[in-house]
Parts: sequence; C-alpha cells; structure tokens
Amino acid sequence: MRANAVSVARPARRPSPLSPPPPDDPIALARASDTTLAEQLTRRYAERIRQRLLAPGARLPSVRECARTHGISPATVVAAYDQLQARGLVEARRQRGFFVRDAEPRPASVAERASGAATPMRPLPNSATALIRAMFVRPGDRPMPGLGTLPAEWLDAPMLGAAMRRATAAVQRDATALHYGDPAGEPRLRAALAAKVAEFGITATPEQIATTVGATHALDVVTRTLLRTGDSVLVDEPGWSVEYARLAALGVRVLPVPRGGDGPDVAAMRRIIEAQPAEGRPRLYVTVSVLHNPTGASLSLQAAHRVLRLAAEFDLHIAEDDTYAHLATAHAPRLAALDALERTIYVSGFSKILTPSWRVGFLAAPPALFDRLVDTKLLTTLTTPSGGELALAHCLEHGWLRRHADRVRERLATARTRTVRLVESHGCRLAAPPNGLFGWVDTGVDTERLARELLDDWLIAPGTLFHAQPRPSTMMRINFATSQDPRFWKALVAARTRLDGAR
Amino acid sequence: MRANAVSVARPARRPSPLSPPPPDDPIALARASDTTLAEQLTRRYAERIRQRLLAPGARLPSVRECARTHGISPATVVAAYDQLQARGLVEARRQRGFFVRDAEPRPASVAERASGAATPMRPLPNSATALIRAMFVRPGDRPMPGLGTLPAEWLDAPMLGAAMRRATAAVQRDATALHYGDPAGEPRLRAALAAKVAEFGITATPEQIATTVGATHALDVVTRTLLRTGDSVLVDEPGWSVEYARLAALGVRVLPVPRGGDGPDVAAMRRIIEAQPAEGRPRLYVTVSVLHNPTGASLSLQAAHRVLRLAAEFDLHIAEDDTYAHLATAHAPRLAALDALERTIYVSGFSKILTPSWRVGFLAAPPALFDRLVDTKLLTTLTTPSGGELALAHCLEHGWLRRHADRVRERLATARTRTVRLVESHGCRLAAPPNGLFGWVDTGVDTERLARELLDDWLIAPGTLFHAQPRPSTMMRINFATSQDPRFWKALVAARTRLDGAR
Repeated sequence: MRANAVSVARPARRPSPLSPPPPDDPIALARASDTTLAEQLTRRYAERIRQRLLAPGARLPSVRECARTHGISPATVVAAYDQLQARGLVEARRQRGFFVRDAEPRPASVAERASGAATPMRPLPNSATALIRAMFVRPGDRPMPGLGTLPAEWLDAPMLGAAMRRATAAVQRDATALHYGDPAGEPRLRAALAAKVAEFGITATPEQIATTVGATHALDVVTRTLLRTGDSVLVDEPGWSVEYARLAALGVRVLPVPRGGDGPDVAAMRRIIEAQPAEGRPRLYVTVSVLHNPTGASLSLQAAHRVLRLAAEFDLHIAEDDTYAHLATAHAPRLAALDALERTIYVSGFSKILTPSWRVGFLAAPPALFDRLVDTKLLTTLTTPSGGELALAHCLEHGWLRRHADRVRERLATARTRTVRLVESHGCRLAAPPNGLFGWVDTGVDTERLARELLDDWLIAPGTLFHAQPRPSTMMRINFATSQDPRFWKALVAARTRLDGAR
Repeated sequence: MRANAVSVARPARRPSPLSPPPPDDPIALARASDTTLAEQLTRRYAERIRQRLLAPGARLPSVRECARTHGISPATVVAAYDQLQARGLVEARRQRGFFVRDAEPRPASVAERASGAATPMRPLPNSATALIRAMFVRPGDRPMPGLGTLPAEWLDAPMLGAAMRRATAAVQRDATALHYGDPAGEPRLRAALAAKVAEFGITATPEQIATTVGATHALDVVTRTLLRTGDSVLVDEPGWSVEYARLAALGVRVLPVPRGGDGPDVAAMRRIIEAQPAEGRPRLYVTVSVLHNPTGASLSLQAAHRVLRLAAEFDLHIAEDDTYAHLATAHAPRLAALDALERTIYVSGFSKILTPSWRVGFLAAPPALFDRLVDTKLLTTLTTPSGGELALAHCLEHGWLRRHADRVRERLATARTRTVRLVESHGCRLAAPPNGLFGWVDTGVDTERLARELLDDWLIAPGTLFHAQPRPSTMMRINFATSQDPRFWKALVAARTRLDGAR
C-alpha cells in the first residue's frame, strides 16, 4: 500500500544527449562506469530506500521485471538484491519476492505509554514525507507531472535577482536592519501585504499581518497556537498530505470533510461535528478556498457563507490557506473577506508564483489572536530573515509581482488547454473543471501501481497521498505546466495496459 | 511579580542633541507636539501594554512618581491614567494605584478539559515573550545593557552585503536554485559547516547536518521530534527563558537542573531523574555547554564526561546549544565532541557573531535520528531560504567568518575588562568569572523593581527571566559590549538607593 509512493524524475533509458546525468546520478545505470551494473543498481535502490521513495514494506520489482526495465541480465539483478539484503535494507519473503525492511520502530513516548488511547500519537505517514522529499529532488531536463510548483524556467530569475540586490542595498544603508527584525516581520512588507490582500477584498491593517517562513510555517504557527494534543481539527479531503502529516505529528485528531466542486460538503461537516463527543468537538477548520490542492476547485460565494454560518454555530476558527492566490482571479471569494477576519486566519505565500527559495509567507489574523500567534512565531524561529522580506516588498511596491503573475496566468492557461486535450485523448478524465495549477485526474487504474511502473521516467503524484488515511485510488494530481509532453501520456497508457494485463 | 519585565531603550529625559527621537517615538514626550502631553503619555503606556513591556497585573508608577519622572504636572498624569482606564487597559485599585488589566484568558483546550492534570498545558510566561519582544525594539542611540546580541555597530555590514550579493549572483547562474532547496539545506553550506565543527572537535559528515531558521528553529525541531506532550525534559537553571517558554508551550514538563561554574550539578541531575516515576523519566537534556546564557560559564571536561555517563545510564538524548561558539576558544569542550554525536544533537547558529537578520542555524545529529529531524523540519517550514545559506557558505569558505570572529573576540575582551571595572566599582558582583558576551551580575536589589525604575532609559534583563518559574532575584544579565557607559551604572546606583529608601 505504501510502496513507491512516488517515482523519481530523471530518465533512465532515454537520457537527453544535451544533459547527461551527473556521475553520481543514482538513477541511470551507465555501462561505461567504473562500478559494476550490480553495484550501481544496489546503490540506486539503497538511495531510494534511504529517501523513503521506497517505503518500508514496499515490494521491489521482480527480478525478471527489473532486468527487463533496465535491459540487464537477471543475474545482475539477483546480485544487486543480494547486496541489499546483506546490507539489511531488504528482506526476501518466500515465494513473494524482496521487500523493503521496516525502519527501526520509534519507541513509544512517555505520553503514549502513560495515556494509551487517550492521546494517540501517530507516526508521520511515510508517504507524505516521501512525496515532499521527492519534490526536492533537483529536477532534471524532463518535466515532472507530479510537481507541486511552477517549473523553474517559468520563474523570472532576473527580476528575482534584481529585487534581492535592492534588498541587500537597503540593509547596507541601514545597519540596524542587521539586527533582529520586528517580531511580526518587516514593516515595509507588512504594509505592502495589507495593500495586496485588499485586492482580494480582505481588510487587514499591517498590525494584523505577520510574516512567516512560507505558508507552511504560517499554518504551523496557527495550528500550534490554537490546537493542543488530543484536540480535533476539520480538514478538506482530498487535500494536501503535508497538512495531514503536520497535524498528525502535533497529536491532533484529523476529521476529513469531503471537498466538492464548490467547497466542502457543509451538511457532512455538520454531521461530523455533531458525531464528536461534546468535549471532542473540533476547534479549527483548515481549508484551501481558492484553486484547492489537488482538485483546482474554488469555493463558491454560497458555500463560503454556509461554512461561516456553521463556524459561528460551533465556534470554530478557520485557517484559510490561500497559497494559490496569484494564479486565480482577484475576485474569487475568500472566507477572510466575508467574515472580515473575525474567526478566519488568512494564510498565503509566494512559492507558487515568485519562487519557493525565498520562503516568504504570512498570516493575517483577528486582532484578538494576533499577539498569541506572534508569540508562537517567536518561540519557533524568533524572527524571519529580512532579505527575502525586503525583496518581496520591492516586488509588491513596484508592481513586479502583478506583471509577473499576469504573464504566468496567461502561460498557464495555454498549458492547461494543451494538457486537458492530452488528458482526454489518452483515456483519462478530469474530476473538476480545469483551473489553476493542478488537475485531479482519474486514470482508471491504481495510481500507486502506476507510479511504480513509471518510476524511472516520470514523477507522478498518486491519489492516495491526498487522503488523510492512505487508500487505493485511481486519481492522480497533475501539474498543468509540466504535463504537456505527449510522451508522458503515451508512457502512462502503456503502463496502464501492462497493469490491466497483469490483473 | 511580572511587572515591567524589561524597560525600554530610548532616553526620555536626556535626548541626545545629535539624534532627536523620531516624531512617533512613543517614549519621549515632546512639548512642541500637536498632541497634548496627556495624550502622548496615554499613547506611550498603551503601546507598552500592547507590547507587554508592561505585563498584566503590573502597577503603573504612582501619579507623583510619574509626574516627577517626566517633569510634568500630576494633573497631566491623572488625565492620562483616566484615559487608559477608559480604554480598558488599566484598572484602579482602591488605595493601591493603577494596574494593567489582565488580557482575556485563553479558553482551556479540549485536552486540558479532558485530561485535567495529566497533561498540564501552561500558558506562555508573559515575561519571556515580553523579554523577546523587547529585544526587537529597534535600538536607539543608547546601548541596552540587557541586549542579547552584539550591538549593530559591531557587525560587519560591508562584509555581510558582499556575501549576500555573491549569493544572489550564484542563484542567477543556476536557475534551479530558485526551486525548493535540499530538505536538509544547501549542500555547499552543509559541507562548510562540517569543516567548521571539525575545528571544535566534532566529527560530522555533511549528511548529518541540516540547516534551520536560526538555532531557535533547530532546538524547536529537535524537541518536537524527540518529545511529546506530557514528556519531561531536563534544562539548566538559570537558563534562557525562551527555551523554557518553548518547552512549556509544547506541553512538556520542565525539570530545572542547577547550573554551576563548570557545568550542571550532576548529582542533583541524578536525584531529579530518580525522583520521577519510571514512566515520567526525562528523555532529553537541553543545555548550553560553552559560554552559558546567562552566566557565561563553560562546561569542564570532567563535567562533560560525568554528564555523558549519566545520559548513557538513563538513556537520555542531549540537545547541545552552542549558540555562542564563535565567541569562545575552539578547544572548549563540547558534549558532541566527546560522544561523537552518539546521543548528542549539536545545535548552533550565527546570530551572535555575523548577524541575527539572516536567521541561519543548523543541527548535527546522530545518523539514526537524522531523517526524523529533517521530516520535522519539512513539516514546519518545508525548506529554508537559500539566500542566507549561500551567503554564509561564502563567509565560511573564504575565511571571512574566522577573521570577523577574531576581531569581535578581541573587541569583546576590551569591553569586558572595562565593564567588569564598572560592575565592581558600583557595588555589584559578578557571579562567575567574566567570559564571552554575558555577565551574571548580583545587584543586591530586586532586579524586576530595578528594571521598572530604569524603564525610561535603559533596557535591563532581570534575573527572574532566567528561571523556569519566575521568582524574585537580585541578579541581572548584562551584555559586556553594551554596558560600558558609566551613566548606566550611575543610574543603577541611584535607582538602587531609591529602592532601598522605599523599603
């Protein structure tokens, strides 16, 4: 079930002549190498196991299958598997093949031992961290259909460099800027952010805005401030697995709410809340309103109103994650706009539009919560780095972000049209109207097995990773920008045919 | 008890003619202003209450005292206090004066309500966050004896600017650097850090090193990975209040161990461990080995060995916080060097030597823990910003950090000599031989009251903030670099005399 959560990006059988893999590339087997093919294969699987791209319990391909994939002899594969076994990384199970060994189990914490089921502490789902780790494999020359961001070549490196140089110059002019900054973040940036969110209909003063290390840190600060071990929290399902994993690591109970085309199923949300014992009722709902990950669907105005009424009835806070804000139209409804930041904490960032490398995010919060949130930020990182914040302030103040976002949206619309045609002409189906960066695609076949089939050539994001509890799924999340290569869709059809034949 | 945890920095009565306070300075009252003196005083106190420089329950100065301090009429003070009361910020108590009102109490979490005393969740000590917040008040032209870092003018702004410009240029040359970086941090920096810690006798490969948003984030990652709500943890006392506050916010039980001149009291540590019920035994010891904050004392080789033997006996992990590494000699004993990163996780950063504004820290960990620590980092911030990491790598690779640190240590030695003379000639006493950045000074008078007396002119760090549970203390932490002004010591003596007279 957890096996091969994601495949990796670099091509093995068809290396581009323009950019040969680097010498230590663990993926491509090189016949001219000074290590044997068996050693190369061993190293490659060992690396994948270490990175948890192959999770504990995952089955390695059969000897025959592996030999065929790499065009090497079965004896070479056997030699490699034996080495992996000797190194304690895999184990042979009679008649069934080779399996990745379980990592050493984490000893139960005192709290677990003491309280038993009262405050269950779930280990991190391996699959989630494997997916995140896979996102950070430096992309090769081939696009990754499962990528979570814009491809690097869509980013405006000269603009980003110019902004960062100006930030550095600003710090030079004012030596006190070398000190810890304001605990809530660079005042210049907070003023620019207040103006930016006003475009989305959200009224926030700079005194309600705190910067963070990307939107992830903002969500971490919000959940750590509002939730305690044993609390419960509502989340959209499907949804972003890192959010599930982070909440589980905090020891809170995750209550998934079905996410439909125009927002969460509010009737189901009410049933879920009412099914909890009075003292176990959720305190927080975490949601992506606009261009939801993975479906790409956005909250309707009606659904937003219904959600807020329910939140008022059950005294819920809402953490609204607007990570994809700049890929949407400004007038898409936000919960934070409707309720005027009364019980909604608005969270956003710039990794999906400018660059993930700056790690600048922020939150806008009700005044009554603000100081507590900044205290949590202080206890986690003290302050945030000033360089990226000043550079971002420059991009906002001078309209650089706006012009860049206009270009990206236009380019993405073209990519979407092209990709949608490929999806439909290869027997797949989009589960929601195409919008934003991601498509939620039904392939008709278990996507975890599909991921394993495609392991050597394409990174895909199988549906199981977007569920609070991993489950078989025929869905996958695609990135419209990086799924335009017809070869990917051909490979997918071929793999699906193989899997259908193997049934 | 919690009142006036710290005072603020800017001068009120003796503004420097060279640098008049900015127009919105909340501290100095300006007669030529277009707002009345009463309004100015009101705004000033309101701001302090908001920033928690005046904590809930703190008593405002008497009307007479306040009038004298500011050279204004008692009627003006009464008008200001009335306004504060009308705004709900303070309350009058019969015969006792005006007190800051309690902030709205946080509602108990579900876990608190459900589990009662089993997993006690303490609110953050206001005093700790007040101290941190005060550290981030932009310093005026007057030094702050309680400052936690080098003063801004000791930092090498041109060097830092040059390093940051080179980092920006490196990113321009390699567009993939605009993507998420390696989850463990910039490989170039990790290699440079491995070489740097080797100078301290610590053997770590780059694969054991992960970067973080300052040392604070590293400690947060370590404690979140190793501890769960209800666990207990050993910490030095006195110690850094942010550490206490962070652990308390995680819902873990803090067990303070008395810190002596050559390390923790190991016999006391054993008694504390053995006094816990078997299932409540601590899992982690968090300590600053070198140039301990606030005493400035360093661990002896003998004490290090005893600590590690005890840790082995009770299967403790150790988080060794080496934040002041670059202000000490390279051969100071580190626990991580003695035990070869077997059960010690080494944490350090560059805020106390290069600049706090880059927020680059790191951890070096036993291989068996490394992946779990990187997973926690991923769930809190995904990755860390690449700019500061590449700039720091440049400083390490080209010997810039080493040369800067040599200069700082020399300058600090001179400052220390001068400050020690001032300490001793003003009836105070250092509790440990002077070393590094901080002195732990006995003033002979309650330093929380002293802080309040000095509120308008000098930021001091009263001893109560360095205890796990706030308690009256005659100690204060001074910064040798920022306590060289004889006027500070004269003001301290005068305040002490006033306090003695008031007894």
